[in-house]
Amino acid sequence: MTRQTRADGTLRHLLTLEGLSRGEIERLLDRAQQYVRPLGARPATSDELAGITVANLFTEPSTRTRVSFELAAKRLGAEVVNLEVQLSSRAKGESMLDTIFTLESLHVDAFVIRDAEAGVPGLVAASVAPHVSVLSAGEGSVSHPTQGLLDALTIRQRKGHVDGLTIAIVGDVRHSRVARSAHQALTTLGAAEVRIVAPPALLPGDDEFRGCSRHTDIEAGLRDADVVMALRIQRERMQDEAQLDAAAYFSEFGLTSARLRLARPNAIVMHPQPMNRGVEIASDVADGPKSAIRDQVRNGVAVRMAVLATVVRPA
Amino acid sequence: MTRQTRADGTLRHLLTLEGLSRGEIERLLDRAQQYVRPLGARPATSDELAGITVANLFTEPSTRTRVSFELAAKRLGAEVVNLEVQLSSRAKGESMLDTIFTLESLHVDAFVIRDAEAGVPGLVAASVAPHVSVLSAGEGSVSHPTQGLLDALTIRQRKGHVDGLTIAIVGDVRHSRVARSAHQALTTLGAAEVRIVAPPALLPGDDEFRGCSRHTDIEAGLRDADVVMALRIQRERMQDEAQLDAAAYFSEFGLTSARLRLARPNAIVMHPQPMNRGVEIASDVADGPKSAIRDQVRNGVAVRMAVLATVVRPA
Amino acid sequence: MTRQTRADGTLRHLLTLEGLSRGEIERLLDRAQQYVRPLGARPATSDELAGITVANLFTEPSTRTRVSFELAAKRLGAEVVNLEVQLSSRAKGESMLDTIFTLESLHVDAFVIRDAEAGVPGLVAASVAPHVSVLSAGEGSVSHPTQGLLDALTIRQRKGHVDGLTIAIVGDVRHSRVARSAHQALTTLGAAEVRIVAPPALLPGDDEFRGCSRHTDIEAGLRDADVVMALRIQRERMQDEAQLDAAAYFSEFGLTSARLRLARPNAIVMHPQPMNRGVEIASDVADGPKSAIRDQVRNGVAVRMAVLATVVRPA
Repeated sequence: MTRQTRADGTLRHLLTLEGLSRGEIERLLDRAQQYVRPLGARPATSDELAGITVANLFTEPSTRTRVSFELAAKRLGAEVVNLEVQLSSRAKGESMLDTIFTLESLHVDAFVIRDAEAGVPGLVAASVAPHVSVLSAGEGSVSHPTQGLLDALTIRQRKGHVDGLTIAIVGDVRHSRVARSAHQALTTLGAAEVRIVAPPALLPGDDEFRGCSRHTDIEAGLRDADVVMALRIQRERMQDEAQLDAAAYFSEFGLTSARLRLARPNAIVMHPQPMNRGVEIASDVADGPKSAIRDQVRNGVAVRMAVLATVVRPA
Repeated sequence: MTRQTRADGTLRHLLTLEGLSRGEIERLLDRAQQYVRPLGARPATSDELAGITVANLFTEPSTRTRVSFELAAKRLGAEVVNLEVQLSSRAKGESMLDTIFTLESLHVDAFVIRDAEAGVPGLVAASVAPHVSVLSAGEGSVSHPTQGLLDALTIRQRKGHVDGLTIAIVGDVRHSRVARSAHQALTTLGAAEVRIVAPPALLPGDDEFRGCSRHTDIEAGLRDADVVMALRIQRERMQDEAQLDAAAYFSEFGLTSARLRLARPNAIVMHPQPMNRGVEIASDVADGPKSAIRDQVRNGVAVRMAVLATVVRPA
Repeated sequence: MTRQTRADGTLRHLLTLEGLSRGEIERLLDRAQQYVRPLGARPATSDELAGITVANLFTEPSTRTRVSFELAAKRLGAEVVNLEVQLSSRAKGESMLDTIFTLESLHVDAFVIRDAEAGVPGLVAASVAPHVSVLSAGEGSVSHPTQGLLDALTIRQRKGHVDGLTIAIVGDVRHSRVARSAHQALTTLGAAEVRIVAPPALLPGDDEFRGCSRHTDIEAGLRDADVVMALRIQRERMQDEAQLDAAAYFSEFGLTSARLRLARPNAIVMHPQPMNRGVEIASDVADGPKSAIRDQVRNGVAVRMAVLATVVRPA
C-alpha cells in the first residue's frame, strides 16, 4: 500500500482512512468544523491555497462529488481544472501516468481522482513528484475516505462524539466503498459497535470489517442503534434480474419509519446519496426529522477543504 | 404557478415575465443598460456577487446561453459551477430534487436551469430554501424570460421606447418560448400591436397570445412593422418530412430583403439564434444594416447580470 | 493565407509560424522564458489579461492542450470559457461563424481553436472584429504553432541555441502538424540541418519541408543528430490493418536506446505527446536522461502565456 505520510509524519495524500490515528482523524474533523456554515449563510472562504492548481480527474464529468471538490478548492483560492478521463485499465497504466505527468508539468499540485477500478489513486500517488498530493474521491469498492470523514463529522455534530455509539451500516455492504471508509473512521474514533446489516448475498467477506457484528435480519440489526447508515443499492446490477427486485428489496431491507422505531429514540439516519427512494430508504425517512442527509452534503465540502488545506504543502 | 416574488414584493426568481409590472421590467432593463459596453470595450465587471455560488444546470453543456449566464455571473464576482444534468422526467422528480438539495447544501445560491420539459424550473423554485433563487434559461416552449428582456432592451436601444410600436413575430410561434416571453415583455411595455405571423400549422392556440393580431400571410404580417422578430424553425422536426421543406419554407415564409421592404423604412430585424440562414431568414437580411441580432447577444449578458444582481439577496 | 499581423506590424493572431521573422520568434521565446518555473515551484502569475475573456473551442473537451491554454489564460488573470463545438464542416461555415460572432458579442477577446480540418482558424481570424485575436491550438495536419514554439524553447534551454544544430524529426511526418510547425520554427532560428526521417509511406510530399534532408533509414537519419524529435504514430489508422503493425513499426522505426546511440552523445529526445510507448518510442528512452519531454509540457504553458500576452491588445 502506498504510504500516505511524509517522512516528517504529516499527511501528504488521502487514499484511505486505514492506518490514520485517532488524533489525525480528529484534527481533520476539527479543521473541517471551522469551515462549516449554516445553510443560507455565505460559505467559508480563504486564500490558503492561492497559487495552487487542483485537477479533478473524474470518469464522469457531472458528479456531485466533483462539484463538492471543485467548490472546496475554489473557496480556498485554488485554481481548478476539470478533466474527464478514462484512467482505469491496467493495460493503459503507462499512458495514464503520462497524463498525470503532463498535468504535473503544468504545475498541478493536487490530483483528485475518482476511478471505478481499485489501485489507480495509489499508483498515481506512488508516481508523482514529492510536492504533489493525491486525494481519492472514490476508488472502486475499496475506499472513499472523504465520505468516511464527512460521515464521522456528521455524527460528531449530531451526537457530540462517536465514542460508545452503536452504528448500523445497512444495505449493499459488499460493494460499498462508503461502508469501508465509514467503518475505518468510526472504529478509530471509538464506536462501541459497528454492525454490518445486509442480505446474505451482499455481506462482505469474512476477512473484512473485522470487529463488526453481522446481521442478515434488518430488524435485529437496527435494534437500539444510535446511527443508521443506509447504503445505495446499485440498481444497475438489479436490472439484470427481475424488475420486481426493487420492490422485493424494499420489502425485505428498505429503511422504513416502522423499522426505524427499533433504533434508539434519538437515532439519526444517514445516506451517502444518490438515494433510490422506495428501494433502500423510504422517502418519509429520508426527509424526516431524524435525517442528517443534507448535513452530510454540507459537511462534505468542509471536509474536502480541510483535507486539501492539510495535504497541500505551504507555498 | 410558482410565485416569483418575496413577501416584501422584491423579485426572488425569474421563471416567466408573465405578471411582472411595467415598472419591474423597466427597472431590470435600466439596470441591464448600465452593464452594456460597446463591442471592443472591456466588459462591465463588479463584485456585487462576491461570495455567491451560481450553478448552471443545462441539459447540453455547450450552449451559448450557458456561456452568457456563466460570464454574467463571473463578471459580477460569483463562483460558477456547470453541470450537465437530465432534469426532465416527471418520474424522476424526487431524484432531480435530491440533486438540487445537494447543490443547495454546497451553498449554491442561485440555479440557472434550462430544460426541454415544462414545469421543472417552477418545481425547483417551489422546493428550494428561502435564500435560494431560480432563473429559467429556457423552459420547454413555455418561457425564456431573459430572452424576452434582452429583446425588449434591444428594441428600446434602437427605437428609444417600446410604446406605440408595431412588432411582427414571424415563424414557428407555436413552439417558441422566445415568442411567448417577448410577447409578455412587449405588451407590458406598451407596444401598440404585436402580430403573430406564421403558417397555419405553426400558429399557437387561440387561448394564447391574447390581444395579438394573427397573420398567415407574411407580406400582410410585415406591412408597416417597426420591429420584425424572426424565429428559429426547428429543422429537426422538418427532417421527418421531405428534404425540400427548408426551401419551401424559405420561399413561403423566409424573411428576405424584398419582404422586409414592406415594413417601415427604419424597421429593425431580430432573431434569437441560432439562425437557419436560408430557411427562416436570408443571410443578407441577417447581416444587413437593419439587423440588431448582434446587439441582442451583447444585451443578453447585460440582462443576465441585471437579473442575477436583482434576485440574489445581498450578503 | 490570413494575415497574422496588424497594420503596425504587431502580432494579432497566431495561426502558423510560417512568415514569422527570427526576431519575432525570439521575442516570443524570451517572453515565454520569463514565465518558466521549475517543477515544484509556484507557477508564474500576473494580471496582464485581467478583464480579458478567452474562449477555448475544442472538438474534444478534455485534451491536455486545452488545459495548458486554460491555465495559461487564467494565470494571466483572464476569464476562460470552455466550449466543445464541432467547427469543421465547410457546409456549416456560416453557422460556425454565427457561434463565433455570438461569443464575440459576449466580449470574448481571444479564441483558441483546435480543429481537425484545415482552414477553420484562418476563416475565423479573417472574420472577427479588429480587436479580437485567434490562436490555433492545432489545425488538421497543417499547423500547431505553439507546439513549434515550445519545441524551440526546449531546445534553446537544453542547448543554449538552435543555430547550427542538426535536428532529426522521426516518424509520421506526412500527417504531422507538429513536424510542420517545428520545421518552420527551427529553420527560422538557424538550425544547420532539419532531417525528415520516415518510412516511405509517411514521408511528406516533395513540395513541403523545403531544405530538409530526407531519410527512410532511421539509423542514417539519427546519425550525429543533436536533437531527436519523435512523432506520435496514429494507431487509429494502424488498426485498420494488421494487429502486428505496432510491433513491426517499433522494430523498423521505434526510437530505442541502441538507435539513440547513433546520435551525438549529448543529444536530447523530444516527443509532442501523447506517446505510444513501445511503438514510436521505447519507454526507457522516453523516461531516460536524454529525454526533454516533461520540459516540453512545462514550456507549453509558458509559451501560451507569452503568445496570449503578446497578441491581446492592452486595455
